[in-house]
Amino acid sequence: MLNYKIIIRTLGFLLIGEGLFMILPLIVAGIYNDGDTSSFLYSALITITVGVVSMMLTFKAKKNIGRREGYVIVSLVWIFFSLFGSLPYVFSGSIPNYTNAFFETISGFTTTGSSILNNIEELPHGILFWRSLTQWLGGMGIVVLSLAVLPAFGIGGMSLFAAESPGIAPDKVNPKIKDTAKILWNIYLMFTAAETILLMFGGMNFFDAICHSFTTMATGGYSTKQASIAHWDSAYIQYIIIFFMIMAGTNFSLSFFAITGKPRKMFRNEEYKFYLIFIGIAATILSIGLILTSNSGIEQSIRDALFQAVSIITTTGYATSDYLLWTPFLTAVILMLFFIGGSTGSTGGGIKIMRIVLLIKNTYYEMRRLIHPNAIIPVRFNKKSVNQQIITNVLAFFFLYIIVFFVSTLIFMVFVDNFETAFGAVATSLGNIGPGIGSVGPSATFAHIPDGGKWFLSFLMLLGRLELFTIIVLFSPSFWKR
Amino acid sequence: MLNYKIIIRTLGFLLIGEGLFMILPLIVAGIYNDGDTSSFLYSALITITVGVVSMMLTFKAKKNIGRREGYVIVSLVWIFFSLFGSLPYVFSGSIPNYTNAFFETISGFTTTGSSILNNIEELPHGILFWRSLTQWLGGMGIVVLSLAVLPAFGIGGMSLFAAESPGIAPDKVNPKIKDTAKILWNIYLMFTAAETILLMFGGMNFFDAICHSFTTMATGGYSTKQASIAHWDSAYIQYIIIFFMIMAGTNFSLSFFAITGKPRKMFRNEEYKFYLIFIGIAATILSIGLILTSNSGIEQSIRDALFQAVSIITTTGYATSDYLLWTPFLTAVILMLFFIGGSTGSTGGGIKIMRIVLLIKNTYYEMRRLIHPNAIIPVRFNKKSVNQQIITNVLAFFFLYIIVFFVSTLIFMVFVDNFETAFGAVATSLGNIGPGIGSVGPSATFAHIPDGGKWFLSFLMLLGRLELFTIIVLFSPSFWKR
Repeated sequence: MLNYKIIIRTLGFLLIGEGLFMILPLIVAGIYNDGDTSSFLYSALITITVGVVSMMLTFKAKKNIGRREGYVIVSLVWIFFSLFGSLPYVFSGSIPNYTNAFFETISGFTTTGSSILNNIEELPHGILFWRSLTQWLGGMGIVVLSLAVLPAFGIGGMSLFAAESPGIAPDKVNPKIKDTAKILWNIYLMFTAAETILLMFGGMNFFDAICHSFTTMATGGYSTKQASIAHWDSAYIQYIIIFFMIMAGTNFSLSFFAITGKPRKMFRNEEYKFYLIFIGIAATILSIGLILTSNSGIEQSIRDALFQAVSIITTTGYATSDYLLWTPFLTAVILMLFFIGGSTGSTGGGIKIMRIVLLIKNTYYEMRRLIHPNAIIPVRFNKKSVNQQIITNVLAFFFLYIIVFFVSTLIFMVFVDNFETAFGAVATSLGNIGPGIGSVGPSATFAHIPDGGKWFLSFLMLLGRLELFTIIVLFSPSFWKR
Repeated sequence: MLNYKIIIRTLGFLLIGEGLFMILPLIVAGIYNDGDTSSFLYSALITITVGVVSMMLTFKAKKNIGRREGYVIVSLVWIFFSLFGSLPYVFSGSIPNYTNAFFETISGFTTTGSSILNNIEELPHGILFWRSLTQWLGGMGIVVLSLAVLPAFGIGGMSLFAAESPGIAPDKVNPKIKDTAKILWNIYLMFTAAETILLMFGGMNFFDAICHSFTTMATGGYSTKQASIAHWDSAYIQYIIIFFMIMAGTNFSLSFFAITGKPRKMFRNEEYKFYLIFIGIAATILSIGLILTSNSGIEQSIRDALFQAVSIITTTGYATSDYLLWTPFLTAVILMLFFIGGSTGSTGGGIKIMRIVLLIKNTYYEMRRLIHPNAIIPVRFNKKSVNQQIITNVLAFFFLYIIVFFVSTLIFMVFVDNFETAFGAVATSLGNIGPGIGSVGPSATFAHIPDGGKWFLSFLMLLGRLELFTIIVLFSPSFWKR
């Protein structure tokens, strides 16, 4: 039997947290006095009340959270955060349709960044702040989850590599999670503050700077401007954002080493090396392409190429140039980048660099095995040989990702009649990127997608954010068996 | 050092075989007296001469053919057969452009069926016969290769499952290959004869019947009519072809058991079961879709659905209905089928049913491992547990297939500016199917693709036909090291 009480109790606790965070946009709304103050007040009260009642009803819950309870909590928290987090949009009238409000909120919490808004600059400051904050909280959530919580339970892709994680007794889980989470929280906060200050140096006002720092560090991609980062025609601002997108797409425990005076550990890490190599290759191809085919001049071509490559690989989704207006070959390059993703332990989504590198290495070794069938050739990563079970897990993940992608594209054709749009919308939702191709490109919105399609994409965002298995395992009969 | 002499000698031997087979269309040309007789005479003479000279120059070659020589021969034989096999098209003036002639020939030998011809019915009988014959020979070649030659060398996907194959001494290889090949050859011949007779019962003339039997059994898909099988508005003919397409996409060693009185062995085979299940599911979805959206009536809707599903899954590529004219959702269903493929040991191409089933099973077991991390749960196939190494190989194959597919689509965008066309052309070439989507659908041809694009697709057909690794291993430096 699942310990339902502790599930409800934990969710209640987290909802109180969400409600308290709503006080921040409440303050912003108060300062700017745009008339949306009451909507945050009501939303916060409702959310906190539900949280408190949930905790009160489950006062006597046993404290043991097992692996299965973990899966359920992790899946439900994103859903409940989005259900309650969409209230401010509805109450303020900024997004009257609840489907749209939910889509915008889960796209925020999953750090996807796909939006249904086409009047961003008309919205009150409180709402814009909350919109950016959902991404920042979602980004922090995923980092803590993948680097602190999941390894402690011995589940998730990262845990496979965390040598110190298995064998922790349940009573030791909590202190360890808290310590790791505190360190990560500090790094995240520090980076956000640094970016905010640097953006203000470039002439951005405090409000825009902090909102963009929130969504950069989360690799979320929500902007306070309809034109996204293209709104600021400043090379300085764009390079600052490129730098912080790269940081956000980096494993935060590597950043921790770099900050604490061990930068070598960072550059010796194979995932980090390949992350920079992938960005380098993509940016080079796009740069050459844009220099040859656009009229932007060399510096801007390189900047546009680098910005878009980093934005898509890190799964941020900001835009300084509409890649659908590039020559089809360059658009196709961008489309390939949809299937890479950030580093493990970063806020980036997608398949992830580590998996891609392991897959490439395994394929290369498989060929060597064909030529020398009797040789035992293990795949090596970070100078250690990788357990066969990890390879199988990574390969199974890749297969599942592609199958989910194909089947979802097929299902999505029920909602839109255009193959490119379906392909792009599904790829961008599953990879937590933001913009797609077809009618959901960087200059367009998701507003025209039918309601059913929006709920479907919302589900895909969650599926991608929690790396498929976490959600799909809930649909497996053996999960519910004793 | 590779034994180059035996490579040249073997290729020479096989070229003589190809030259001798050219005598068949020569006879057909003579009977119909369409004026293309001399083109076959010259082509046969050139091919046989090159073969004889190659053998004479390598008279003293040592007879040992190792694993590496095997890879080189298998890759080169398809290329050389296509280089010489395109001569009749050029000499007869039927396809004056050599690139087009090569494309049509390699599309034949690889049993793909993509065509550049838009005047099929104007072509002389000898040329049409040769066109069908290239597919028939290619289909036979791949069956012998996968069920007789490769297992004897202990290489290839099938060999992994052939318990009796490893450990055969080199001097015992030849008789064993010959025995197995003879049995397969007889089955192939028998099926071809049976289909020809049954098609003639349906009112098809002998020439069309034998040409279509050739290309059905090869899962090739070349027709003697521009409208493909839609030319015959006969339910009987279409059901006969559906039946033989299903037989051609079945492992020929299972057909051997069925014929020799052990049909149970066939229906107990898990790959065969899933093959029928996949066809059943696809045909059901398409049937419901066509009944709801087309004006064809129930019987024809079901027949069209079944025909197209079988044609694509078996990678034949015949058409009785243009799926690009169906509602986009149904077209997308067809597109998904591009990534399945026939059974191992059949003439069908693509990823193959066995691999797909193993991938699905492994993913399911991976989820069970997530819930019960300490349980050892091996993947089972045909009631035996599958070696982990086979799973890794299958997973690596899938990854490579998807990577080659994506990168090739990207490269192909250099030749055509349309994403759908690139996607479809690459998928259909790599899967050895025939028609694609976009501007290379079932009612269109590949004539408008630029020359560079045609050579690129030709390469992909070969890559797909030889299951990627066989070709890619040749580009690996360790292959050429001592």
